[in-house]
Amino acid sequence: MYRIGVDLGGTNIKAGIMDESYQILLKDSVPTGSERGFEAIVKDMAALVLDLLKRQSISDDEVIGVGIGSPGSIDSATGVVAYSNNLNWHDAPLADELMKLLPFKVRVSNDANCAALGEVKAGAAKNINNAVLLTLGTGVGGGIVSEGKIFEGGHAGGAELGHTMLVRGGAACTCGRMGCLEAYASATALIRQTKEAAMQDPSSKIHEICQGDLSKVDGKTAFLAKEMGDATGTKVVAEYIGYLSDGIVDFINIFRPDVILLSGGICNEGKNLTDPVNELVKKNCYANNFNFIPKVETAILGNNAGMIGAAALVD
Amino acid sequence: MYRIGVDLGGTNIKAGIMDESYQILLKDSVPTGSERGFEAIVKDMAALVLDLLKRQSISDDEVIGVGIGSPGSIDSATGVVAYSNNLNWHDAPLADELMKLLPFKVRVSNDANCAALGEVKAGAAKNINNAVLLTLGTGVGGGIVSEGKIFEGGHAGGAELGHTMLVRGGAACTCGRMGCLEAYASATALIRQTKEAAMQDPSSKIHEICQGDLSKVDGKTAFLAKEMGDATGTKVVAEYIGYLSDGIVDFINIFRPDVILLSGGICNEGKNLTDPVNELVKKNCYANNFNFIPKVETAILGNNAGMIGAAALVD
Repeated sequence: MYRIGVDLGGTNIKAGIMDESYQILLKDSVPTGSERGFEAIVKDMAALVLDLLKRQSISDDEVIGVGIGSPGSIDSATGVVAYSNNLNWHDAPLADELMKLLPFKVRVSNDANCAALGEVKAGAAKNINNAVLLTLGTGVGGGIVSEGKIFEGGHAGGAELGHTMLVRGGAACTCGRMGCLEAYASATALIRQTKEAAMQDPSSKIHEICQGDLSKVDGKTAFLAKEMGDATGTKVVAEYIGYLSDGIVDFINIFRPDVILLSGGICNEGKNLTDPVNELVKKNCYANNFNFIPKVETAILGNNAGMIGAAALVD
Repeated sequence: MYRIGVDLGGTNIKAGIMDESYQILLKDSVPTGSERGFEAIVKDMAALVLDLLKRQSISDDEVIGVGIGSPGSIDSATGVVAYSNNLNWHDAPLADELMKLLPFKVRVSNDANCAALGEVKAGAAKNINNAVLLTLGTGVGGGIVSEGKIFEGGHAGGAELGHTMLVRGGAACTCGRMGCLEAYASATALIRQTKEAAMQDPSSKIHEICQGDLSKVDGKTAFLAKEMGDATGTKVVAEYIGYLSDGIVDFINIFRPDVILLSGGICNEGKNLTDPVNELVKKNCYANNFNFIPKVETAILGNNAGMIGAAALVD
């Protein structure tokens, strides 16, 4: 039997066929074209799935089901996308409409939740039942797997781990509040912090790395400057790691999972990121002398995590 | 059939017999005497339960089971108190030892979790499946009920909602970090905030209310001063409500429950507390224009909540 996972993004629709141990047999993608609206996108999703099955010569009765990871607030019980600003959808009945075009069970969940489930099924948290995943990208996404299942809270509106307050009255967050974790621990935030620090220090190697053009600063710049012995780069990295670690401690105090996973481009820093994070987490967790302290690790499935987790949505 | 709930506190052991709709038929308490250690306390708990059953003429086979709400980090799967600083217990096998003395199933959970479950079974959240309770007392305790069951996270160390960061680098928390919600939204914090503001304003009515002795400031003082039109009292109350609301918004963004309940002495302020909190919560929740926003209400079971919730622990 086979599973199908679809990762619906603002830019591309990616789909893959997997075997029962979540090995990807075939995958492909088409542009989302989100400006075309809901119906056209649903049609393309169905066509992509049917095309993959045909190319792999898999018959309908060999398919367990189709899972979809979608951005936004998802009501997974009904398969409705309650709200997605990326796709500009409100109350879009994604599962129902897809089931009109496909002879399979269809389930939908939030993309960050799917990424967390993917890592649990076939990635860095394989054989682990409780995991929290933070995606450090444009924003900070949260995915929670509890007892092997996605924990999304009620009313299709929980697990927004990026929108928990860290620095009250601090930097503006996209959600309208000031000082959310997202405004301090996203890649966007790290870039802002790097630029601000460089502007304060004209002698910083950060200027050299981005050839005098601060618009070229990215998530790697501060780490690179630190490696070159630059004091300002070192300070930016230390502060960023402090913010991230405090957010992680909050989620350990709430969920106490077996493992915390980080994903996103910043994770390419590997142990340069996770070693100091683990040190701070160990020091600051509630009841740290008496209780289990989960390790913070980098996710390993990269861009496939959401697709693989989506494929696991259908029981 | 009957249920028995025990609320194990640092000062008293309270126990009650309930019918199947959680009406308390008989309750009593004995001093905990926590300095006597684990075995003596377990013996007294068993004796109290057996005494209540005898007084109510209930036979053993009419008892569904005994539930215990205990302070500290509890491994509810095994009934072990992993750590309680109130009782000075480490890895105390509470359920197993009680089952040697009582012919009933025994289950244990954290006291704040039990209070939340109590409100769901027979209080302010009756017939509601998803609720988050915050106890605003010496500290800030958290109880989470998800799909009708206590959500305690993994490793007996989750649901510590008071130990999530609100003001990074801010006031010292009992957990060792700076700026936890507990350090801003507990009754202890409100008292500190009231005293600090009064010291800055010698003309504040706060001095009058506590007869010139700031050690008499309690959780009501600032609300009382506000009622008298005092500017400093009004400011303290507004700031406290701001802190509390931001913490609540975080938990809505994570759990999106059907209702948020507040308990503790401060809740006697009733709508003077919950009306402005609800206003801020409505304004600041993630995706507030598109998503369900739970109401913030005061709990109604008072000191009985933990005992009632404990009685619901045995299936």
